[in-house]
Amino acid sequence: MRFTSHTTSADGITERDFVHDGVPGVLWTPGHDPAGLVLSAHGGGRHKRAPGILARAHRCAAAGLAVVALDAPGHGDRVRTAEDERFAIEIRSRMAAGQDAGALVAEYNALQASRAIPEWRSVLDALPALGDRVGFWGVSMGSALGIPLVAAEPRVRAAVFGLIGATGPLVRAAAAITVPVRFLLQCDDRLVARDAGLALFDAFAAPRKSLHANPGGHGDVPEHELAGAVTFLAG
Amino acid sequence: MRFTSHTTSADGITERDFVHDGVPGVLWTPGHDPAGLVLSAHGGGRHKRAPGILARAHRCAAAGLAVVALDAPGHGDRVRTAEDERFAIEIRSRMAAGQDAGALVAEYNALQASRAIPEWRSVLDALPALGDRVGFWGVSMGSALGIPLVAAEPRVRAAVFGLIGATGPLVRAAAAITVPVRFLLQCDDRLVARDAGLALFDAFAAPRKSLHANPGGHGDVPEHELAGAVTFLAG
Repeated sequence: MRFTSHTTSADGITERDFVHDGVPGVLWTPGHDPAGLVLSAHGGGRHKRAPGILARAHRCAAAGLAVVALDAPGHGDRVRTAEDERFAIEIRSRMAAGQDAGALVAEYNALQASRAIPEWRSVLDALPALGDRVGFWGVSMGSALGIPLVAAEPRVRAAVFGLIGATGPLVRAAAAITVPVRFLLQCDDRLVARDAGLALFDAFAAPRKSLHANPGGHGDVPEHELAGAVTFLAG
Repeated sequence: MRFTSHTTSADGITERDFVHDGVPGVLWTPGHDPAGLVLSAHGGGRHKRAPGILARAHRCAAAGLAVVALDAPGHGDRVRTAEDERFAIEIRSRMAAGQDAGALVAEYNALQASRAIPEWRSVLDALPALGDRVGFWGVSMGSALGIPLVAAEPRVRAAVFGLIGATGPLVRAAAAITVPVRFLLQCDDRLVARDAGLALFDAFAAPRKSLHANPGGHGDVPEHELAGAVTFLAG
């Protein structure tokens, strides 16, 4: 893990850019020993410094947690392959034509998961000093890679997922997850049918799992849920 | 309001029994000026000192809130009318026979609401010194009376409902509620179908409303949701 920049803000939160095995990421740490580490995965088309990811990082760090975010394959500062381009163009054109892009998004998400999971595991290997209390937070495409990641990764002790519906691979991965899960669902999400979200929530094997549903579209998760997710991961 | 007993526990919480217009109730207050008042309604077949109601009162008081609980009509120390008896016998016998008692429970709940709402409003009139921050917490039958109560009562500023499904009267009352609502749903609730719970949640006009779904049956609302409800009402 090669750190390339280092800044500390007025509230004592240190932010460091890094590159690890060619993957660019950011590590935020509070001004004292972190109480845990949150793996923060962004959604489709976003990147490691998207506004929502920055806000999430600062909330977590203010609660005493370290946070690591990576650019997902084909996102942010990373090279887009011909395959990434093909999926992006096709998904956009189907959505613009008012067609259902769900199956194509699910296919792209499965590809993303297969690429991103080894990257996250390798980053976790490189950050052992940050405590054995590791949480995961990623919705939408962040859950598409996070659900199989958490299923495979015993170091993750709690996870915030959501804004995604059931697919065969995700249901199978969810059935292997027994750590506490919080699952966010937006009632007016035009990208994820409510029944598909509920079906995925049902699939988690976690004895402690809570679905939180709120009004609004895919991008409208309310402020109080973000605060609640931090409390959940810090708890 | 006539107080009939007064005890203070080691943690400074004062508990007073009272009778108000013939309705027996309990008022819990923290050891300092309360930050608000919670109207706590019990479920069918329970009473003002049922274990869940006591635990709820102590949680709220520990968070600085005063709490008032009443025996619902036909419950606890109150007279059961012939009508109460008829409903109780019929509901029990349908459930014992494995039949759907839902319509009958809804009918009894509507009767309970018509009786209990004026009682709660009168109690609220009698407790004006307890602040203008009034919340409501009642699930199952407690929501059956609470939803129309909160719809009619502008002094209530936030409400915890749940464990109940949509009926015509409840949907109409929910559509008049605009204060923040938390709605609890149990995924394995044999008394309330999930779709019926979701339909009632959908009906609330509140811009800020959250449905929290958890595994388990009607009586299995997890500990962390109870703690979360207190934070919601105190917040």
